[in-house]
Amino acid sequence: MKGELLYEGKAKRMYSIPGRDDVIWVEYKDSLTAFNAQKKSSFGGKGAINAQITSLLYRKLTSFGIPTHFVEDISQHEMICSKVTIIPLEVVTRNRLAGSTAKKLGKEEGSPLKAPLVEFYYKDDALGDPFLSDDQALMMGAVATKAELDELRASALRINKVLQEIFLTAGLELIDFKLEFGRDGRGTLLLADEISPDTCRLWDRKTGEKMDKDRFRRDLGKVEESYQEVLQRLKGAAV
Amino acid sequence: MKGELLYEGKAKRMYSIPGRDDVIWVEYKDSLTAFNAQKKSSFGGKGAINAQITSLLYRKLTSFGIPTHFVEDISQHEMICSKVTIIPLEVVTRNRLAGSTAKKLGKEEGSPLKAPLVEFYYKDDALGDPFLSDDQALMMGAVATKAELDELRASALRINKVLQEIFLTAGLELIDFKLEFGRDGRGTLLLADEISPDTCRLWDRKTGEKMDKDRFRRDLGKVEESYQEVLQRLKGAAV
Repeated sequence: MKGELLYEGKAKRMYSIPGRDDVIWVEYKDSLTAFNAQKKSSFGGKGAINAQITSLLYRKLTSFGIPTHFVEDISQHEMICSKVTIIPLEVVTRNRLAGSTAKKLGKEEGSPLKAPLVEFYYKDDALGDPFLSDDQALMMGAVATKAELDELRASALRINKVLQEIFLTAGLELIDFKLEFGRDGRGTLLLADEISPDTCRLWDRKTGEKMDKDRFRRDLGKVEESYQEVLQRLKGAAV
Repeated sequence: MKGELLYEGKAKRMYSIPGRDDVIWVEYKDSLTAFNAQKKSSFGGKGAINAQITSLLYRKLTSFGIPTHFVEDISQHEMICSKVTIIPLEVVTRNRLAGSTAKKLGKEEGSPLKAPLVEFYYKDDALGDPFLSDDQALMMGAVATKAELDELRASALRINKVLQEIFLTAGLELIDFKLEFGRDGRGTLLLADEISPDTCRLWDRKTGEKMDKDRFRRDLGKVEESYQEVLQRLKGAAV
């Protein structure tokens, strides 16, 4: 049973579950936002697509021994997740350079990297989620120790390997993606938030066509079709 | 004897010295630039002030066992320096948060730090000298190994301790500063470039008055007087 609204973000609502202190009810919204919510849209069924993609990926990650906050599906756009204290860092992993980071570093969109690059951004909408060095992340108190940053980095790289494999089987190249982590009541580090075309750059393996939120950011059209296509391909992939 | 012009930057000209391959002739210019040279000015004698401050500080750093590229003075605005291959990183050390970094992190101008913070910026005017994490600095090839970044960080912190002491004796608090490093023909890491009110934030120890390039950046007036005052105070300080 869905209890009180605990938190509403740009893409999800979190509710308590009466009588349960360890889990929350997560509802995916149909809204679509970009550039720190300066650009907004939505389409019917978007929340259900992202929730199903996330659920499918979290089940697969679990089968690879990666702990996530996912507990079980409730409906196509709702799931039960472990209650975690979110670490206020967006952990971004890049296999190719794209978007604002490619621009910042003077590289072509899609420039390959010799090794995956992990970056930390401070979760603070008012500040525009600034990019942080390790020392800055420690100074801001996002984590308590350098070892925790190393743990996040190692975890992101491990997840990257699994996700790359899953997406490749679905004919998609994982260009980059954003993760969030949290700790449950016992202090265990769990992958949290979502993994979807909102949080990943996914390019068609053969044509290089963008199949993710960049279609919305850059007004490329076929946003809904692309999100739907990612879900269908993942469902059909034999990983 | 001054040979051919090797390089002209925003604040200095470098000349060869005929018959000498290991050293260069450095001439400090009177120009004053800020915001990646979008704001420009100059005042007569500015080059001489910064050259004298740099010379004085480099002599003191040398006496503390810190290797620099400084060899000897030629005139008030010219000096001979070891020829080095510059590492394309601006190494910024902060004792308090100020300027764009304070703003980026949502902190008050002058917020104290529990420990000095060292940051790397990629030296590239066309890109606006972007802030880099360690992993990004390695990916960009600014240095070859993580150990070199650790060496730069350790060196910056050691220099910070010495400079803080020198400036305090001159009644100035060292808020933050930018260093550049290079390697000479034998691969020795040397502190290079300049240390001056152009590259440091210096606040009067008692009044908190800004005595550095922020007077120019923020149109606070008395730019020339402040630079001159820093030189005179350092000359009078008994370190």
